[in-house]
Amino acid sequence: MSNYNWLLSLCVIIMSTKIFSIISRRAQLPQVVGALMAGLFFGPAVLGALTLHYFGVQFCLLPSELLTRLAELGVIVIMFTAGMETNLEELKASGKVGFVVALTGVIVPLGMGAGLMYVFDRGANLISAIFIGAVLTATSVSITVETLKELGKMSTKVGNTTLAAALIDDILGLICLTIITGIAGEDVNLTLVFAKIAGFFVFISAVGYLYNKFMKWSDHVQAQRNLRRYPVMGFAFCLFMAWASETLFGIADIIGAFAAGMIIAMAPKGQYIASKFDTIAYLLLTPIFFANIGLEVTLPTMSYHLVIFTIALVVVSVISKLGGCGIGAKLCGFSNRQSYQVGLGMVCRGEVALIVAGKGMSMNLISEDYLGPIVIMIIVCTIITPIVLKASFKGQDDVAGDTMFEDKFMLEEQADEFEEDLYRRRSLLASRTME
Amino acid sequence: MSNYNWLLSLCVIIMSTKIFSIISRRAQLPQVVGALMAGLFFGPAVLGALTLHYFGVQFCLLPSELLTRLAELGVIVIMFTAGMETNLEELKASGKVGFVVALTGVIVPLGMGAGLMYVFDRGANLISAIFIGAVLTATSVSITVETLKELGKMSTKVGNTTLAAALIDDILGLICLTIITGIAGEDVNLTLVFAKIAGFFVFISAVGYLYNKFMKWSDHVQAQRNLRRYPVMGFAFCLFMAWASETLFGIADIIGAFAAGMIIAMAPKGQYIASKFDTIAYLLLTPIFFANIGLEVTLPTMSYHLVIFTIALVVVSVISKLGGCGIGAKLCGFSNRQSYQVGLGMVCRGEVALIVAGKGMSMNLISEDYLGPIVIMIIVCTIITPIVLKASFKGQDDVAGDTMFEDKFMLEEQADEFEEDLYRRRSLLASRTME
Repeated sequence: MSNYNWLLSLCVIIMSTKIFSIISRRAQLPQVVGALMAGLFFGPAVLGALTLHYFGVQFCLLPSELLTRLAELGVIVIMFTAGMETNLEELKASGKVGFVVALTGVIVPLGMGAGLMYVFDRGANLISAIFIGAVLTATSVSITVETLKELGKMSTKVGNTTLAAALIDDILGLICLTIITGIAGEDVNLTLVFAKIAGFFVFISAVGYLYNKFMKWSDHVQAQRNLRRYPVMGFAFCLFMAWASETLFGIADIIGAFAAGMIIAMAPKGQYIASKFDTIAYLLLTPIFFANIGLEVTLPTMSYHLVIFTIALVVVSVISKLGGCGIGAKLCGFSNRQSYQVGLGMVCRGEVALIVAGKGMSMNLISEDYLGPIVIMIIVCTIITPIVLKASFKGQDDVAGDTMFEDKFMLEEQADEFEEDLYRRRSLLASRTME
Repeated sequence: MSNYNWLLSLCVIIMSTKIFSIISRRAQLPQVVGALMAGLFFGPAVLGALTLHYFGVQFCLLPSELLTRLAELGVIVIMFTAGMETNLEELKASGKVGFVVALTGVIVPLGMGAGLMYVFDRGANLISAIFIGAVLTATSVSITVETLKELGKMSTKVGNTTLAAALIDDILGLICLTIITGIAGEDVNLTLVFAKIAGFFVFISAVGYLYNKFMKWSDHVQAQRNLRRYPVMGFAFCLFMAWASETLFGIADIIGAFAAGMIIAMAPKGQYIASKFDTIAYLLLTPIFFANIGLEVTLPTMSYHLVIFTIALVVVSVISKLGGCGIGAKLCGFSNRQSYQVGLGMVCRGEVALIVAGKGMSMNLISEDYLGPIVIMIIVCTIITPIVLKASFKGQDDVAGDTMFEDKFMLEEQADEFEEDLYRRRSLLASRTME
């Protein structure tokens, strides 16, 4: 008989993320913070360290291939639904501003990160220093998206700009990494990278056009007999696009999933498909995604020197991104408050930072000692972003109304009850037709 | 960068199971058959063998840890929802009949299987022969459940009896295996096994009582503010029960999940929770479960002798289960047709047969040559059961009405449209409350 502990792990993750989220909300924090904390608590960082200390045995949840894959699937579904909720026209409108924000948001952290490394380690060569800067460039859009969704701010000017900037940021980060590794001596063809990015845009335009045509044809030809096939095909399309963007164009899978979401939302049955991914996300995939981030953390034993560096890295990562993106937004005519909110939304770092760090280590450009500080920087940014972002919208809610928020809440509640009622009727209908 | 092929695998599985299911339905076959065929087609058995033959490279989907785990999660969710749809009172009413059907359905295949082995291989000792018989005892309830659900026959007398018998069958199979391995010399304590089974029933009764109490209290205390927590907690409960039954009582995880489903359905909010698992099942987990069965098949190269044995094994496995269970049902006063339907429902074999076979091989009681025939037997039983079972209900539909079925279909369609409408209103409400 095989080992069944994975069932218990899933059980603990799903239950604890929910309980921690409820506690978070009671404490006026975004629920995302609770989900992150749950992983941190039940993982090696807290429970593992405690049990090791007191009982001599490390008893905690550990990352596994299954959890990692499900977490990847989770972030793909988060970006897919974000894509389905994004209005292309509005995103286009935010495109220019987004580009400026992304650009300043890459240049400032790159410079400040390199400067920090130079100050901290006089022996470091320029390329190593720039690599630490490069680690700070890429925003992790998924946590910001989830927080903006939770606050109901996805479709605002700030939300759209942040999203556009974070998407462009990923591409800039990629180019940045390519240039640096190119300079560092590896044989990377810059032209090829640009060609691939251009190819990607041609690809999604073509696929989007074909998908739209096909769905319009299918909508005409077929009776609406069986609606289930639409979400199923939509999901398969999302997975294909995620795979294709990574494998064919070297662009992050989540960007492919996002594009798939936008394409589906614009075609017939888009809204119906979008309505179906809510349950799968909150029941299984999103909790695992957030908890898994916490699980990956093992607090390393660090020298005094490294602790100082860690603190400095955290401060620089927050200030540089907030400042860089804030300046960009301000240049584009945003108010001070809006610029601050856009900057905050971009502070989150994620797996791209780890990928860059891993690349640097494999090229012997940065020492493995720096992995600890980088992981801590990611965690701190990830936890403070939702908290401060929520707080930054606070005043605004007071103006337009906490009552509004309450209203939305009550409406959702009504819709839930309505849905429950619908289900009852449906089963009644089904049972009536049986013998 | 890691390998992204798993995304493509998931995409192909989700898409192909849907397409094959649609084709199945057009051909008047149950959709489950299509899903099984999809795995068989894209797996090593067909596409793998074809590409190996024509191109010299094996290009096909392969089983992986991720797919295996997701398939396990899939069968757990199938049994969990089956539990939520089961009426305990009706199941109790079917309990006695179910026990008789299960008992005759274990004894006849055990005897016939052992007889076959004895005829086929004169050198086989009694224990080896009985082992082959034991492989034929355990019914795989999940495929039958899925087919009965699809046909809308879960809540009929035949459906309930089949379900009860299949559940008891699992426990009998377990006892049977324990006795045989005990006789074969391993030190297995029979009293302990019975104590564990009794313990399991005490455990689910106690947990069920506590869960019900807790939900009633929670229903009183909490406002209905946030309904999402109920399905989330229900899912965590299901996973816990699946884990607990395997780990604490040595009883199959799917039985624990089934018990969790029954417990939840009887407590407050049960119907609401049940309504939420539909999407996650059909979008992700069920397709993977069925496709994975097909993927596991690699057609072995077999001697002429083994081919004959395989054919004989398939015939014996179908006849013995159909006959054994049919006689049991007939003894309990079922009509000929109903007895036939119950017997058919029990023909399906699954992972338990493989577990028994694996156990026998690890104890050197049966040769590894027999794995091929056993796998083919499982596949054939799995594919023919839904087809013949659907056909066996055919006449009945004509009496009570194909129109009835059509009716149910149209009502579901209306409900789907209603739901789509609900979603639109909901997003309208949400957008209205934003600034």
